[in-house]
Amino acid sequence: MNFDRELLEKGKEVESVIVSFLPKEEGWAKTVLEAMNYSVCAGGKRLRPMLMAETYKLFGGKDKVIEPFMAAIEMIHTYSLVHDDLPAMDNDEYRRGRKTTWVMYGDAMAILAGDGLLNYAFETALKSFEMPQTDLERAAKALSILAKKAGIYGMIGGQTADIEAQNPEIRQLLYIYEHKTAALIQAAMMVGAVLAGANDDQVKIVEQAAFEIGIAFQIQDDILDVTSTLETLGKPIGSDEKNQKTTYVTLQGLEKASCEQKKLSNHAIELLESLQENGFENVFLIELIRSLITRIK
Amino acid sequence: MNFDRELLEKGKEVESVIVSFLPKEEGWAKTVLEAMNYSVCAGGKRLRPMLMAETYKLFGGKDKVIEPFMAAIEMIHTYSLVHDDLPAMDNDEYRRGRKTTWVMYGDAMAILAGDGLLNYAFETALKSFEMPQTDLERAAKALSILAKKAGIYGMIGGQTADIEAQNPEIRQLLYIYEHKTAALIQAAMMVGAVLAGANDDQVKIVEQAAFEIGIAFQIQDDILDVTSTLETLGKPIGSDEKNQKTTYVTLQGLEKASCEQKKLSNHAIELLESLQENGFENVFLIELIRSLITRIK
Repeated sequence: MNFDRELLEKGKEVESVIVSFLPKEEGWAKTVLEAMNYSVCAGGKRLRPMLMAETYKLFGGKDKVIEPFMAAIEMIHTYSLVHDDLPAMDNDEYRRGRKTTWVMYGDAMAILAGDGLLNYAFETALKSFEMPQTDLERAAKALSILAKKAGIYGMIGGQTADIEAQNPEIRQLLYIYEHKTAALIQAAMMVGAVLAGANDDQVKIVEQAAFEIGIAFQIQDDILDVTSTLETLGKPIGSDEKNQKTTYVTLQGLEKASCEQKKLSNHAIELLESLQENGFENVFLIELIRSLITRIK
Repeated sequence: MNFDRELLEKGKEVESVIVSFLPKEEGWAKTVLEAMNYSVCAGGKRLRPMLMAETYKLFGGKDKVIEPFMAAIEMIHTYSLVHDDLPAMDNDEYRRGRKTTWVMYGDAMAILAGDGLLNYAFETALKSFEMPQTDLERAAKALSILAKKAGIYGMIGGQTADIEAQNPEIRQLLYIYEHKTAALIQAAMMVGAVLAGANDDQVKIVEQAAFEIGIAFQIQDDILDVTSTLETLGKPIGSDEKNQKTTYVTLQGLEKASCEQKKLSNHAIELLESLQENGFENVFLIELIRSLITRIK
């Protein structure tokens, strides 16, 4: 099977896992449930749950214990977008061509839907603790990683620094990229590894690879904002420059950005391929990562 | 020792537990950490962690595994206030005589501080999973209870219904009281019971008692809004009527409210006292509950 077709099929599988964990829209709190589901069902690449499932498979994982965590990480990613889009934050009215949650349901309900998704992410991940085949120690370690990478020492920390920094210098920009973008990619891949029983050294390799993938992914975003066409990207190009946003490209120039991006992504793939020595191999995962980093939109 | 003095001393102990789990205010995300700590340190009765610790003691609990959960429930309670106070929600500028978080740090940082507190509550509770004396099954059960009672089937559900309901009838009002107020009291007491090793029947008794305590507590709030003086309550009396807020008192009248409140609180105490048959007794806990329900402010 070629990669594009496999990606499409696996995307459908991930989608059905996520949907299976969404709450039913009923009762006196129905509106917040609708707003939550509206936000999650707005689409997206489902990159984090897919990376999680594929890293789980890389280390030989075969159970359904991964599924609640896959849904959980997508709920966390989604809540962060719902709150980011609020008028008090980025004030975005559209995302992926659809009205954002606060435009549809009002600010108050969007705040509650975000809170609801974050809380429900933990409720959902905790469902895997109740599965008969679950190793509680692994599950607890996985949940701690997810919580830490999503919180003030991870994604929320990056979001805060992003809001605070008016003209970040390169170290601060990399702090933002590491925490706002890479942390949740790390969580995805590390949770997959831990739940499949990877040892500490292997989890560290995955953490480092995911860090490099996350930074490379974000630098690619910056590059595309300069080099892509409106048609390809589906959103206005040059918007970073227009918004006077400091990016890796504005700080280091296009050539250095492109070079660094390639260096990081090649090294990430090398790290993952080094696991083959111990028999851990997932060709699709490597192709997925390559496709993310060489993407043109 | 008399009750008031014991309450004061135990309050100090609870306070020091909470403070010991607060994050250090450092690094590029410092502002959100400051906003989180400002919110938690704004005071309050610390009712939920105290009820948790005392229910833990009731069932013979003696370890420090309860402490991360005590801090966690106070963080959850605090985040809900931080988000509630936002201009997009209740638009409150003061709470307990201090400026609210969004007034001090701006809307965006208050949203992030709330998110940070909710996420950090889970990170904190998960610290008890790493303690050597922890029973992982109990800890997982306790965390599931906390998550569920705080989420869309608990507090967030109640908050949503409260915003949605313009003129709630009695059943809807009781849904709001059960979820917005009682759910977190239930979580506090149930987590204490579960971590101490209470069996399912005992946890059910605690859940029912905490439900009744929560509803009685909220009805007492409604009663005080009508009967108290400005001086005693420290906030404008009759504010519910002024805000045209439907309460138990406006729907059922003062006499019925007072009667129902007494019935619920007496029954809750009876339930807890029924545990004495099996040797589970905590005189301070009973006095604490009595004081909550007969409070005049």
